[in-house]
Amino acid sequence: MILRGNFTSEALSMSTNIQIFIPERNRAPFRVVYLLHGLHGDQGTWLDNTMLPVYAKDYNIVFVMPEAGRSFYLNLKYGRKYFDYISEELPKVCRKLFNISAERENTAVIGCSMGGFGSLKIALSKPEQFGFCGAISPACIYFKYMLEDLRKDSESYLKTGGDAEEILNDLQSIYGDKLEYRKDYDIVALVKTFPAASPKPKFFVTCGTEDDLRKENLDFKDEMKKTEFNYTYEEWQGEHDWYFFNDALKRTLDFWCGTGVKSFC
Amino acid sequence: MILRGNFTSEALSMSTNIQIFIPERNRAPFRVVYLLHGLHGDQGTWLDNTMLPVYAKDYNIVFVMPEAGRSFYLNLKYGRKYFDYISEELPKVCRKLFNISAERENTAVIGCSMGGFGSLKIALSKPEQFGFCGAISPACIYFKYMLEDLRKDSESYLKTGGDAEEILNDLQSIYGDKLEYRKDYDIVALVKTFPAASPKPKFFVTCGTEDDLRKENLDFKDEMKKTEFNYTYEEWQGEHDWYFFNDALKRTLDFWCGTGVKSFC
Amino acid sequence: MILRGNFTSEALSMSTNIQIFIPERNRAPFRVVYLLHGLHGDQGTWLDNTMLPVYAKDYNIVFVMPEAGRSFYLNLKYGRKYFDYISEELPKVCRKLFNISAERENTAVIGCSMGGFGSLKIALSKPEQFGFCGAISPACIYFKYMLEDLRKDSESYLKTGGDAEEILNDLQSIYGDKLEYRKDYDIVALVKTFPAASPKPKFFVTCGTEDDLRKENLDFKDEMKKTEFNYTYEEWQGEHDWYFFNDALKRTLDFWCGTGVKSFC
Amino acid sequence: MILRGNFTSEALSMSTNIQIFIPERNRAPFRVVYLLHGLHGDQGTWLDNTMLPVYAKDYNIVFVMPEAGRSFYLNLKYGRKYFDYISEELPKVCRKLFNISAERENTAVIGCSMGGFGSLKIALSKPEQFGFCGAISPACIYFKYMLEDLRKDSESYLKTGGDAEEILNDLQSIYGDKLEYRKDYDIVALVKTFPAASPKPKFFVTCGTEDDLRKENLDFKDEMKKTEFNYTYEEWQGEHDWYFFNDALKRTLDFWCGTGVKSFC
Repeated sequence: MILRGNFTSEALSMSTNIQIFIPERNRAPFRVVYLLHGLHGDQGTWLDNTMLPVYAKDYNIVFVMPEAGRSFYLNLKYGRKYFDYISEELPKVCRKLFNISAERENTAVIGCSMGGFGSLKIALSKPEQFGFCGAISPACIYFKYMLEDLRKDSESYLKTGGDAEEILNDLQSIYGDKLEYRKDYDIVALVKTFPAASPKPKFFVTCGTEDDLRKENLDFKDEMKKTEFNYTYEEWQGEHDWYFFNDALKRTLDFWCGTGVKSFC
Repeated sequence: MILRGNFTSEALSMSTNIQIFIPERNRAPFRVVYLLHGLHGDQGTWLDNTMLPVYAKDYNIVFVMPEAGRSFYLNLKYGRKYFDYISEELPKVCRKLFNISAERENTAVIGCSMGGFGSLKIALSKPEQFGFCGAISPACIYFKYMLEDLRKDSESYLKTGGDAEEILNDLQSIYGDKLEYRKDYDIVALVKTFPAASPKPKFFVTCGTEDDLRKENLDFKDEMKKTEFNYTYEEWQGEHDWYFFNDALKRTLDFWCGTGVKSFC
Repeated sequence: MILRGNFTSEALSMSTNIQIFIPERNRAPFRVVYLLHGLHGDQGTWLDNTMLPVYAKDYNIVFVMPEAGRSFYLNLKYGRKYFDYISEELPKVCRKLFNISAERENTAVIGCSMGGFGSLKIALSKPEQFGFCGAISPACIYFKYMLEDLRKDSESYLKTGGDAEEILNDLQSIYGDKLEYRKDYDIVALVKTFPAASPKPKFFVTCGTEDDLRKENLDFKDEMKKTEFNYTYEEWQGEHDWYFFNDALKRTLDFWCGTGVKSFC
Repeated sequence: MILRGNFTSEALSMSTNIQIFIPERNRAPFRVVYLLHGLHGDQGTWLDNTMLPVYAKDYNIVFVMPEAGRSFYLNLKYGRKYFDYISEELPKVCRKLFNISAERENTAVIGCSMGGFGSLKIALSKPEQFGFCGAISPACIYFKYMLEDLRKDSESYLKTGGDAEEILNDLQSIYGDKLEYRKDYDIVALVKTFPAASPKPKFFVTCGTEDDLRKENLDFKDEMKKTEFNYTYEEWQGEHDWYFFNDALKRTLDFWCGTGVKSFC
């Protein structure tokens, strides 16, 4: 069952759109994936641009696809509290309305690009809720250095053209006019300060070999390999586009659930 | 939460559209209303044409709005099995996916026009599942006589113009080329042969005083008053249109749940 | 035809949701109403909560319903450019894709609450495009004084509870941290500095007699009566809710198109 | 712009669902593809299961996706007139509402499985409207022999299980209880009796080498090669599933518009 709709979020204090895929023939309670879109996307991006329903019918997984504007899935200084919404309120609402499992082993967060960043942030911040994180071509893992550069010289950045003006505006909405660094919004810092007592989420990170973000994903891989996290990185020929994201979604689901045991997933 | 979508029905052996309203702030498990459209409508008719979300937010009710084409919510001889779908498969699927009550006291079927017929047919056929029936301007309560007339002389009927050709075609799809009477598709017969051992659904029937269907609804009222069914009939100034259906929906919900105790409904 | 969807806005630099009503039986090119939601709403609010399709089928009007978050239909300092999107890009896109009139006499902007503010702002800023403005229970007409008060003492405002924290955040997103006044975001100032050479939009403003915003709407009426604008104000028993907005929508359409000549509207 | 909605069809005499993709950045008036679903599908099938928006953004094409139940895009004896709806009313409505070309060179019909049959039937019956037909894994090209077999012995067919009972019911809805052959519903007969004076649609037919329908598509290819139709057949490794349909859609669009000149398509 594919469902498209909206509801009033308390955390956002406004109406927000949502899309949900439920494999109605399968066994409930279902596993659940919170599936996050990228910078220019919305709640419909994953269903519109990939073959999700074709892949998904083999798994006992409910896919919940929220929208988060250009928020990076963070609580905005100027704007709405997307982190609270997606990491706390949304799972609570979904568990209340739908027949989905509340176990962390059965709860994943997956996203591409800005949504890849979001999935890392959410899994590292709420490990007791999310047992699995699938980051597809994740962006802004090294936010810290980006902010440092911009604080020193935003003019040069603006001259790079493209979306630069909008992205600077996004960062000011998140971090304030002065782009003050926040440790709790920094993926690498969250890894380093991860509480020893917390259950560790399992990570599966993918990136195309032609993706501009490859370098920072390889750096992050090196960083993660030094830790005790269960972390897997896979890359193959591909760019930062829906051809890659579509394939990566399927591989991520197979990695989480196993290709051979789909019906028991 | 308003959800619009579709899924593959086994009873219909095809994909079918559905809309769902869930009052996400309220207490689960929710009561449920299966809300049925009229002859020219579809799954969206009730949400599009009425103020349903405004009324609904006060009740602990999930509204499930299926589509049934022009089937009168019956199993078609030539076509799909809409009665099986809506009276059996749909409630089963909804109970599996959503957090709704399975108690008959918490399960209602409400509809307008052709959907009013459908709600009567379903409540009388599946009383162990549906505790309440709200029939708004229900049509074709006296199907038997309509079929008799048409078997004798369909030509005169076709000459009445309007939708006549399409309605004759609908009836042939349901009853076959010879329009053979079926007791189990006859509301009045279902009332008369209602099993003594079955729990009785509660009925609330409404009709506008300017509605062409008023006469047969008054006749049906007389018939019901002779039985032991808990049956209430209300009429007020109005026609067979969405102004009336909108008001009638609100009154029907108030009748089922009580105006004074909405929050506990 | 009711259409729900999304597209990538260049002005917003992201995907945005939209709903459209087209009276497919009527004569094209159609008149067009840009219909704006309130603070907690979205692109679906008008269709979900009112009987719009019932009223609309009598007019030759396409209704375009965009979403604008909590932006007050302004270009946000921190966030997206909603004013540019809705007053410029959206009409351009709609004229390109749909068979709608480009004449200002055939183009209206109507909204409720925050959307009422938006409709006033848009009609006063783009009079060569919008010939009619229907402001239903418009909010924040006296933004200037609100900002002055908040600059002096935001603490007291925050203590009023409810949505206060979110609204202060909205205003900072619009006006910046220091809530600097902007003349071009002030309805009253726009009225006073309206260019003599510009064609004047026609205004129809409505408000419930029990609405908390009544006082400022009456003040605004007095102000408008001193000008040469074609301005009509109507009020009747009602609150700041969808019962009133639903009735006001119908009255506004009748005022614009005339009750007696619907088919030629 | 992706739009999902519904409207009341006069030909169907009921509400019907529709989905539309418009490449809003491109040049209008747009080319148009009527894109038809298969036996178990609906208006959403193509968008849900393929990467259509990813492929489509490169072409100046509006995609119109109607629903047709299990009608084979024919006028049902018992049921609705889907052929009239999709071949006549729908293009008329779309040309009225949207900014699409009315030239046959710019108008295509494409479909998979039952929709492949539909696309052949429509292109052969309305060649003055449809200049291109893309039939993907088309079904029931040899309907005539299927009906003959069923008239002789439907019992054996029913024993084959699966969907057999439903398909026999579909055929009775189309052809009547006695499954009387109709020349105008027979693809091969339409080819043979194609009027010499009519403009010929161009055909691009695809089928997977593992598809059960391959044999009849190869037979049809032989038949078409004897005619003067501009007919191209391509096959590659694949089954009767969405992996194949997704690839075939892209190849069909490239064939119609040319891979090298997308932006001028």
